[in-house]
Amino acid sequence: MRKELLRPGERLDDLLVSNLHIIQDAKAFCFSMDAVLLAHFATIRPGDKVVDLGTGTGIVPLLLTTRVTWLSVIGVEIQPDVAERAERSVLLNNLQDKIQIRVGDLRRIEELLPGHRAHLITSNPPYLPLGEGQVSLSQSQAIARHEVCCQFSDVARAAAYLLGTGGRFAMVHRPQRLTEIFYWLNYYHLEPKRMRLVHPRMGSEPNMVLVESIRDGRPGLKILPPLYVYEGESYTPEVRALYFREGV
Amino acid sequence: MRKELLRPGERLDDLLVSNLHIIQDAKAFCFSMDAVLLAHFATIRPGDKVVDLGTGTGIVPLLLTTRVTWLSVIGVEIQPDVAERAERSVLLNNLQDKIQIRVGDLRRIEELLPGHRAHLITSNPPYLPLGEGQVSLSQSQAIARHEVCCQFSDVARAAAYLLGTGGRFAMVHRPQRLTEIFYWLNYYHLEPKRMRLVHPRMGSEPNMVLVESIRDGRPGLKILPPLYVYEGESYTPEVRALYFREGV
Repeated sequence: MRKELLRPGERLDDLLVSNLHIIQDAKAFCFSMDAVLLAHFATIRPGDKVVDLGTGTGIVPLLLTTRVTWLSVIGVEIQPDVAERAERSVLLNNLQDKIQIRVGDLRRIEELLPGHRAHLITSNPPYLPLGEGQVSLSQSQAIARHEVCCQFSDVARAAAYLLGTGGRFAMVHRPQRLTEIFYWLNYYHLEPKRMRLVHPRMGSEPNMVLVESIRDGRPGLKILPPLYVYEGESYTPEVRALYFREGV
Repeated sequence: MRKELLRPGERLDDLLVSNLHIIQDAKAFCFSMDAVLLAHFATIRPGDKVVDLGTGTGIVPLLLTTRVTWLSVIGVEIQPDVAERAERSVLLNNLQDKIQIRVGDLRRIEELLPGHRAHLITSNPPYLPLGEGQVSLSQSQAIARHEVCCQFSDVARAAAYLLGTGGRFAMVHRPQRLTEIFYWLNYYHLEPKRMRLVHPRMGSEPNMVLVESIRDGRPGLKILPPLYVYEGESYTPEVRALYFREGV
């Protein structure tokens, strides 16, 4: 573990799989369960070229590398300091041959990755429309949580740009926004094919939705059984298995 | 019970609430759990004017009358023999002051109910696109199950025609078609506000989806906890409570 990659005010968290670690700033946006669930929900095949839109700390690329023997991921992040931290996490885990971090605006994906073709796009985008939710966030947190720098339509558009027919777009968002999500997916010819609702516990409403779409796919959505996170005070076995597992 | 309302080849089923009975033809389409769940899912208020689109045997109007002290329901049915049977069920239950059955095509709702304004539209429409599923059905069953006489877009259009701003449209359909359903609801300014997935049992995929939309409503979808139908060989307590209950 190369501690020299850590800066003052940062912390090093153990991802509990494949001896992966991630650098995070406790004052800024830290990865949450959403990213972990997304990294396991996405359909991935060895050799896939992946782009993670709004990669933040790089958590989704890091976890994806533990699922298949080889893949190539580009993480796109608009905030230079956040991207630089993600870059150091890549170095720390010696994953620079698999993960590349690019600073840039996904609204200008044509300029950032011109003509790039991916098999899979992942995204854990900001959930909240501007003007909703807490207002006392730092600039960095606001960008991660609120649609300051991109709206969902921008993410769908960038995903569609990067995918050929049959390419996959896996994302996580809030269930309240499902109608809008479906609207933009349809608009950009990303057909929702697989969906899973995540409920904190049995009997409660879902607070996350995972959706995988296929570029130019045929209509027909498969909704999976719900994923429950807690039973009593503990994680359910299914969620525990995601956090404590063997990498490939 | 006026047995003279029953014709040869028909059977009389007890709805187990408010002493309601329904006339069905065992060889034709009989009501199923979908209709029962829909009749209980819809938000209804005393005094509501309701239209049930594609009413079939009239099961949804019959059950709605047990939920509030007074309401007025028009059931629209395209098949004259099916509508006539629904009419006899209304007479049998002495509900002719609350339920009216109209024979007609919901694709021509402007001619069938010109200028009519309802508070609530319900619909348990045909689920299957033409050319899918069993083909050995009678004409009557085919119309009830397949989109022979109307597609979902026609149902949404008719609902929107009948509702003013704030009016409700409650429906049941197959989860596989959710993206298309949301597309047409959005197209006709019917904003999905409340949704519930129905799973045969825990751990299984849903096989029904209930959606309530508001005409010209603000975006924001509430997804309820899943409804499970069976546990072991029995109905779950929640479903049992719908079948064996007191009317108002």
